[in-house]
Amino acid sequence: MSVPAHDAADLGRLIVQGADGPGIVSSVSSLLSQVGANIVSLDQYSTDPAGGRFFQRTTFHLDGLPDRMATLEDELDKALGALGLGYRLVEARRPKRVAIMVSKADHCLLDLLWRQRRGEIHMNVAMVISNHPDLGDDVRGFGIPFFHVPVDKGGKAVAEKEQLKLLKGNVDLVVLARYMQILSGEFIEEVGAPVINIHHSFLPAFIGAGPYLKAKERGVKLVGATAHYVTEDLDEGPIIEQDVVRVSHVQTAADLQRRGADVERQVLSRAVAWHCEDRVIRDGNQTVVF
Amino acid sequence: MSVPAHDAADLGRLIVQGADGPGIVSSVSSLLSQVGANIVSLDQYSTDPAGGRFFQRTTFHLDGLPDRMATLEDELDKALGALGLGYRLVEARRPKRVAIMVSKADHCLLDLLWRQRRGEIHMNVAMVISNHPDLGDDVRGFGIPFFHVPVDKGGKAVAEKEQLKLLKGNVDLVVLARYMQILSGEFIEEVGAPVINIHHSFLPAFIGAGPYLKAKERGVKLVGATAHYVTEDLDEGPIIEQDVVRVSHVQTAADLQRRGADVERQVLSRAVAWHCEDRVIRDGNQTVVF
Amino acid sequence: MSVPAHDAADLGRLIVQGADGPGIVSSVSSLLSQVGANIVSLDQYSTDPAGGRFFQRTTFHLDGLPDRMATLEDELDKALGALGLGYRLVEARRPKRVAIMVSKADHCLLDLLWRQRRGEIHMNVAMVISNHPDLGDDVRGFGIPFFHVPVDKGGKAVAEKEQLKLLKGNVDLVVLARYMQILSGEFIEEVGAPVINIHHSFLPAFIGAGPYLKAKERGVKLVGATAHYVTEDLDEGPIIEQDVVRVSHVQTAADLQRRGADVERQVLSRAVAWHCEDRVIRDGNQTVVF
Amino acid sequence: MSVPAHDAADLGRLIVQGADGPGIVSSVSSLLSQVGANIVSLDQYSTDPAGGRFFQRTTFHLDGLPDRMATLEDELDKALGALGLGYRLVEARRPKRVAIMVSKADHCLLDLLWRQRRGEIHMNVAMVISNHPDLGDDVRGFGIPFFHVPVDKGGKAVAEKEQLKLLKGNVDLVVLARYMQILSGEFIEEVGAPVINIHHSFLPAFIGAGPYLKAKERGVKLVGATAHYVTEDLDEGPIIEQDVVRVSHVQTAADLQRRGADVERQVLSRAVAWHCEDRVIRDGNQTVVF
Repeated sequence: MSVPAHDAADLGRLIVQGADGPGIVSSVSSLLSQVGANIVSLDQYSTDPAGGRFFQRTTFHLDGLPDRMATLEDELDKALGALGLGYRLVEARRPKRVAIMVSKADHCLLDLLWRQRRGEIHMNVAMVISNHPDLGDDVRGFGIPFFHVPVDKGGKAVAEKEQLKLLKGNVDLVVLARYMQILSGEFIEEVGAPVINIHHSFLPAFIGAGPYLKAKERGVKLVGATAHYVTEDLDEGPIIEQDVVRVSHVQTAADLQRRGADVERQVLSRAVAWHCEDRVIRDGNQTVVF
Repeated sequence: MSVPAHDAADLGRLIVQGADGPGIVSSVSSLLSQVGANIVSLDQYSTDPAGGRFFQRTTFHLDGLPDRMATLEDELDKALGALGLGYRLVEARRPKRVAIMVSKADHCLLDLLWRQRRGEIHMNVAMVISNHPDLGDDVRGFGIPFFHVPVDKGGKAVAEKEQLKLLKGNVDLVVLARYMQILSGEFIEEVGAPVINIHHSFLPAFIGAGPYLKAKERGVKLVGATAHYVTEDLDEGPIIEQDVVRVSHVQTAADLQRRGADVERQVLSRAVAWHCEDRVIRDGNQTVVF
Repeated sequence: MSVPAHDAADLGRLIVQGADGPGIVSSVSSLLSQVGANIVSLDQYSTDPAGGRFFQRTTFHLDGLPDRMATLEDELDKALGALGLGYRLVEARRPKRVAIMVSKADHCLLDLLWRQRRGEIHMNVAMVISNHPDLGDDVRGFGIPFFHVPVDKGGKAVAEKEQLKLLKGNVDLVVLARYMQILSGEFIEEVGAPVINIHHSFLPAFIGAGPYLKAKERGVKLVGATAHYVTEDLDEGPIIEQDVVRVSHVQTAADLQRRGADVERQVLSRAVAWHCEDRVIRDGNQTVVF
Repeated sequence: MSVPAHDAADLGRLIVQGADGPGIVSSVSSLLSQVGANIVSLDQYSTDPAGGRFFQRTTFHLDGLPDRMATLEDELDKALGALGLGYRLVEARRPKRVAIMVSKADHCLLDLLWRQRRGEIHMNVAMVISNHPDLGDDVRGFGIPFFHVPVDKGGKAVAEKEQLKLLKGNVDLVVLARYMQILSGEFIEEVGAPVINIHHSFLPAFIGAGPYLKAKERGVKLVGATAHYVTEDLDEGPIIEQDVVRVSHVQTAADLQRRGADVERQVLSRAVAWHCEDRVIRDGNQTVVF
C-alpha cells in the first residue's frame, strides 16, 4: 500500500461495489479507457464469482479531472447503473476532513497529529472535540482548533447536540481516539460521516470496559487492539484492523495497559490512513481492505 | 530458553512455590550451596514482594544427583517446610512420559512427533490414543504404540475407562492434539497427570466449536490459537501460550482453518516443550512461564 | 491469498508483464471478455505508470478452457504482442511438477511433503534427489521416488550430469530444501526450470556458510530465513519471502539453528506455494508477489 | 519486564558480572540477606557454568537504602572482590540523566519525549543537542533545553568540543536519535557515558548510509532497525534490540523509509527504557538483556 502522489490534481479513485456478474472489470476499465483515463492501479475482490459480492478500487489518471468530475459521474451512472452496481468517485488530491474526539488519554491523538504533520496520513484535521479540557494545549500546539464539550451526568443529549452542531457538514470522518463516552444511535445516524473507533482489546475478546484487567486475570499471553467502524451495536461494528503485542506473567494490569497503548495507536493510525485513501470498503459487518 | 544438556545425569531442577516472604531466594541458594550443588540458572518471580505469591525455578549441578535425590528431598522438606513453601525436585535427565490423544487431524500430532525425533522436545511419547483409526500408520511409522479407542454415541464413560486403563501410572503428561471429544471431570481427576489442550482460537474469543467460521463471520484480521491446561471448565483452564496469524477478507473460512492449523501446531509444540522442561508453573487460573 | 478451487478444469491464469503504457488493463480484460471468459480475480502493479514496468495476474473462468488453450494463445499473441508485452497462460488445474533436492536435514523436506499431502500446496512432487541416502525411507513413506546421487569430492560435474538426466523435461520447479551443495551455472542454465533455494539467514546479512554461528557472535536479537530464486550469483537471486524469529542472549548457536529451522521451513513452504499458484513474477533481481 | 515503582526510595539494583564459579548466586543473596535486604527480583545468566561469564541483576528492598549505600558498597567490595567479580549498585529512585542528539528527523526524538512524559521511560532528559535548529520549538515545548551546535564542514572537532562541554559530568547516557554525524573515537572516549544509537537497518545488513534504497533495490520483504551501543567501530557496537516490519514490492524506497521510521522509534525507545532500568549488560560485543 504505497502512498500515492496526493497532490497530483488529475488522480482519481473509483470504488465499485455490488452483486458480482460477468464482465464488470472489463466494463469499468473500458469506460475509463474510453474517456481517456489511464489506470494506475486496480484491486478487485469477489466473495464468489457466481452470485457473490463484488468490490473494486481503481486509481486512474485523467487530464483535467477536477473539471470533468460531473461528466464522468454521468457516464458512470449510466454504465454501472445498468449493471446494478453502486460506486464512489473521489478526487485523490482532496484530503478527508477529519474530527478527532478524545477524553484524557493522549497517545492515539498525538500519534494521529504527528503522522498528519509528517505527511503519513492524507487528512485535514478540522477539529478536536473533548469532554475534558486537558489536551487543549497539545492540540492547539499543532495549530488545530480544540473544542471542549463537557458531558455532564445525564447531559449526554445536550452534549451530542453541541457536538453535532460542530461536526455536521464540516467533516468526512469522525475518529474516536479513546473517547470514553458511548455515542447514541441518533448521533451515529445524524453525524453524516463514518465513525472509526479504537477498541482497547482484541475483539471479540474482552468486550466492554476494563479489558486490560480482564486480560490480566485471564492470564493471556497477548494483548491486542481493534479499529472498527461504529454502529449502534457497541463493540460490534465492522473491523478494519487489529494487532497484538506479546506479554507475560510479569506484567501488571497497568503494564498491559501501557503496552496496549502502543498497539492502540498503531492500529488506529493504520485504520485512519487506509480509510483516508479509500482502501476500506464496508461489506455488511465485515470490511474489504485493499 | 535454551535447551539444557538433557543427558547430564547430575543436572537437577527445583521448582519452589508459595507465599512470598523475606529471604526465600537466599535460603534456597544457601541450602543448595551447602549440599555442594552449583546453581546453573535461576528464574524467580513474585506477584508482590509484600504478601504476594512467590515462584522460583532453579537448575543446578550436583555430583551424583541420582543417588542423592532422597537426601536432598529430606533437606528441602525441612528448609522449605519451615518457610511454608511447596516444591518439586526433578532429575533433568528423565524425559517426561507423554500420551498424545488425537482424532483425525494430523498437524499437531505430526509436529510433536517430528520435534521429538529431532530432539527439540525432551519427552518420551509412550502412546497415542485416538477415537479414530486413521492416524495409526503414521504413528507406528515413528515406532510409537497407537491405541484405537472408539467413542460410541453415549459410550464416553466406557471409552474413558479404557483410556484410563492405558494411561494411569504410565504417563506424566497427556496432550490433546486436536482430540475432538470433551473429557469428563472424572477423567481429568483420575488420570493423575496434567492435561494440555490446544484450543483452535485466541481464547477467550470464539469459545467452543467452529471458531474459524465465527472468525470469518466477524471479519477479524487475525486468527489465533491457545494452549492451556485442561480443567473441568472447558476452554477456561490456565493459558500456557498463545499466538496469532494475520488474515484478510480474501481468506475463506477453510483458508482460515488451514492457516490456523499452522499456528495451532506451533503453539502446542511450544507449550509441551516448556512443560517438559518444567518451565510452566500453575498459579490459580494463570501460569508463570520461565 | 485464498486457495482457488484447483480442480475446476475451466479455471485459467494469465500473467502479463512488460513496459507500462495506457490501456493495458482495459485491453486484457476486453480480450478475455470477448472470448467469453469471466474474470475471477485480478492483481495489477506498475513500478511507475509513466514509463515503468507493468505486471498483471488474472484468474478467469472459461468454459471448455482445456480445448481452447491454443486458440486463446493465438489471440493473446496478437493482442499483447501489439502492445509489446510478454505473457504466460496457465491451466490452474495442472499442478506444478516439482523435484526437491536435499542433503541430510529433513525439516524443510518433511514440511513440503506434509503440506502437499494436506492439499496446502498445489504441486506434484515427482522426485526427491539427495547426495546422501539418509532420508530415503521418509520420502518413500510418502509414496514419492527417492534418488541418491552422491557427490564425491571433485565429482560435482558427474553428479550434476546424473541429476540433469533425472530432471530435464520432468519437472516445472526445482526446490533446494537445504541442499548443501552449490550448483554450477551450467546446471542452472540447463535444468530448464526455475530453482528455489532456502537460505538459512536474513539475506543480505550473514551471507554464506555458518550463519547461526555468525549471528550468535554478532549478538543479534532476531534470526531469519530467505527463500529466493537461484541465479549464478549465489545468495543473490530475487527474494520471494523472508521471515524472522526473536532470540536472546540465552540461546546458544545450536539453539539459534533449531529456531531458525522453524523459520526456514515456513518461509520455504510459503515461497513454493506461491510459486505453484503463479503468484511470483520475477522483475530483474526483485520479485512481485501477488 | 514490568515497570518497578521508581519512587520507592528504598529500592536498589545490584548488577554483578564476571567469571562464573560455584556459589555466586548464593554468596550475593546471603550478603543481601545479612544486611536486611529483601530480594524483589533476580535474573541470572551464565554463558557456561564451567568457566563461562556470569551475569546477575538483582532488585532488592532495603530500609533506608539512600543512607546505607556507602556501607553496602564496602560490603560488596569485600565479598565480590574476593570472588573476582565486578558490580554496580544503583538506587532505583534516581532517573538516568539523558542527553538526546538529533539532526532534522523528529520521529525518534518525539517518541522518547512522549514516553518520558507518559512515565514509560524512567529518565530525565537534561538536554537535546542538534546540528540543526529545526526541532528547537518542539523540544522546548516539552520544557527541555535545546542546544544548537552546528557542525560546519571540517569543523567537527570544534563542534565536538562544544558538545563535550555541554555533556561531560551532566549526563549518564547519550542517545543518538537519528543524529546524522559520525562521532569521533575521542568523543566516545571522553564523554564519560554510554552512547546508544539507532541504526536504520537490520544490522549487519545494509551497513552505512541509504539502507532503505539498498533494501528496495535488493527486493527484501522485511525492513528493520537496530539499537546498539556506539563503539569506535561504526555500525559494530553491541546490539541491544532489533525489530522488523513487513514490506512488499508495492512500497517505494520512500515508503520503506516511512515504515522503517516506525520501527526505528519503537526499537530505540525500548532500548533506552531497558538501559534506564539497568537491564542491559555489555558482554564484549554482545549484550545480556534481562
